[in-house]
Amino acid sequence: MLGGGKEIMIKNFNIKPISKDKAKALQVKIDNKTKPLGALGQLEKLASHIGCLQNTLSPSLEKTTIVIFAGDHGITAENVSPYPQAVTHQMVYNFLKGGAAINVFAKQHDINLKIVDAHPQLINAKMGFGTENFLIEQAMTEEDCQQAIHKGADIIAHIHAGACNTIGFGEMGIGNTSSAAVLMHLLTDTPLEDCVGSGTGLDENGIEHKFNILEKAISNRNITKAPLTVLSTFGGFEIAMMVGAYLQAAALEMLILVDGFIATAALLVAVKLYPNILDYCIFTHQSQEKGHQKLLNELKALPLCNFGMRLGEGSGIAVAFPIIQAAVNFLNEMASFEGAAVSTRLFK
Amino acid sequence: MLGGGKEIMIKNFNIKPISKDKAKALQVKIDNKTKPLGALGQLEKLASHIGCLQNTLSPSLEKTTIVIFAGDHGITAENVSPYPQAVTHQMVYNFLKGGAAINVFAKQHDINLKIVDAHPQLINAKMGFGTENFLIEQAMTEEDCQQAIHKGADIIAHIHAGACNTIGFGEMGIGNTSSAAVLMHLLTDTPLEDCVGSGTGLDENGIEHKFNILEKAISNRNITKAPLTVLSTFGGFEIAMMVGAYLQAAALEMLILVDGFIATAALLVAVKLYPNILDYCIFTHQSQEKGHQKLLNELKALPLCNFGMRLGEGSGIAVAFPIIQAAVNFLNEMASFEGAAVSTRLFK
Repeated sequence: MLGGGKEIMIKNFNIKPISKDKAKALQVKIDNKTKPLGALGQLEKLASHIGCLQNTLSPSLEKTTIVIFAGDHGITAENVSPYPQAVTHQMVYNFLKGGAAINVFAKQHDINLKIVDAHPQLINAKMGFGTENFLIEQAMTEEDCQQAIHKGADIIAHIHAGACNTIGFGEMGIGNTSSAAVLMHLLTDTPLEDCVGSGTGLDENGIEHKFNILEKAISNRNITKAPLTVLSTFGGFEIAMMVGAYLQAAALEMLILVDGFIATAALLVAVKLYPNILDYCIFTHQSQEKGHQKLLNELKALPLCNFGMRLGEGSGIAVAFPIIQAAVNFLNEMASFEGAAVSTRLFK
Repeated sequence: MLGGGKEIMIKNFNIKPISKDKAKALQVKIDNKTKPLGALGQLEKLASHIGCLQNTLSPSLEKTTIVIFAGDHGITAENVSPYPQAVTHQMVYNFLKGGAAINVFAKQHDINLKIVDAHPQLINAKMGFGTENFLIEQAMTEEDCQQAIHKGADIIAHIHAGACNTIGFGEMGIGNTSSAAVLMHLLTDTPLEDCVGSGTGLDENGIEHKFNILEKAISNRNITKAPLTVLSTFGGFEIAMMVGAYLQAAALEMLILVDGFIATAALLVAVKLYPNILDYCIFTHQSQEKGHQKLLNELKALPLCNFGMRLGEGSGIAVAFPIIQAAVNFLNEMASFEGAAVSTRLFK
């Protein structure tokens, strides 16, 4: 049985490599700050990266926004998650009421939060339509997949038009570590068992059951490894929207903050289509979810933090955000050796 | 030649182990938050730790303060640092004018900053008196060492009286990685070469020279390993003040945020006197300075972050502070499953 027979056409995204024109001048500015050479470590790399991306010696993070895409997954019928599917929409209400972890962290750092119900045919409407159970049929139609990607892109274009230049994507979707595991397996050739983890908290038996279901589903669908075919066959609506959101954000030269396992799996699809997108990305937090470290390795990504979290919602982005802000702040605000009349090195 | 012949008497600090009375209730509160069990990883441990320390289910970080102790070191005469000794007081002025890294990061997180000139006989006066060159004689007299410890303690008692319950210590002192390396070596029996690093940026030859100087100094002094004898013989005034500051902070049951290599070496002296002090400590950042990881291992300490920084000034505390605040915030602000009408687990 072949799924994904139809080719999925999406619009063209013009994603250029970032300019390195300011790299040398940025390094001079960083090295003239009143500190030993290199003493701010990773923060210096972040400052240089963001300066290059914004092509300026004085970068700024404007109206930083986290968009949470929420979607239901048909595969939950196979008991791949210990939580019922209903939790997805219950958590959406929790986001809207301000009670979730991401609300607390976003508020702490004055990050804007947007919640998107990721069914492509719904706008500001009640939840209820999820993907199909990909053990039995492909998760979404090619048309829905295409529409979800374009919808995700439109949402980011709209946010960018509101003068936001820094964005990150979170997700909510009971069952979506199953989708992400299959995407990772098929698009990186990592053995499936290295991609399947405990999600919201399966025990060893639960993980084995999840692995068996996913292995069977992959065998049932027997598709080509074209990224969008894999996405439509095993993805979620929230994942498809994130793919479009990543692509549009990079095309608009925004700084992209990358969250955990599912967010990185969505990015993986985008990277397969437009490898340059990685130039725009900062990886914020390495999730405790099993596959994330290997997926980061595949993308040659070094995450900024590891607090052992595995929550989704964009929580890694929000918790790590002040570190990124600190990098921008030292570049803009610290005194230079000359300005502060501090002596430079005597010798090496 | 025996240094440190006189015993150094310091006042008694009453440092009790922290209460675990609230541990179970804190875990219940954490587990009822709208997230999978354990999904906030390290933040959950921090929340529980701070709740136990403050003996409450609703902890708070009040008037968080970083105190930077600055002191000159006679050992700089031996070219153990690539920067001239004058940088210590130049940087003190930079702190006072707001141009240093710690100013930027403290401002970002609304952390109070206090700068202390650590010569024990000076208060709000010009710099100028440092320790003696410990290659030739002991760094400070027993009286000065004792006075510096008590002075550090007094400063913290004063800050605590201003309703501050969360404190961290930074330092500025050209040459002080030399002191810290010797303290670590003598108080942990770690081979000296594992304790000696590049400091503000020595190259391989510079590190070898520094090692040779320190090895010779240790052999010249030939002292007992009593913590305060080691401190007075090889320490700095800023390190001695930090020892007193740590002890007083723990006696006052404050949350103590621990910075990098020198700050941890000062803590090591305090731990040797009062092991319970570790109950009050959160280790914020693992420095890039060579000895720090091993020193943290000696203290069985797991640092929260590693951004490859090696700056001192309390910079690791300030950059990591929002993570600790996030832990307190989720505990206080997140909704519970019941409150948010979110379903709990179906199965394991």
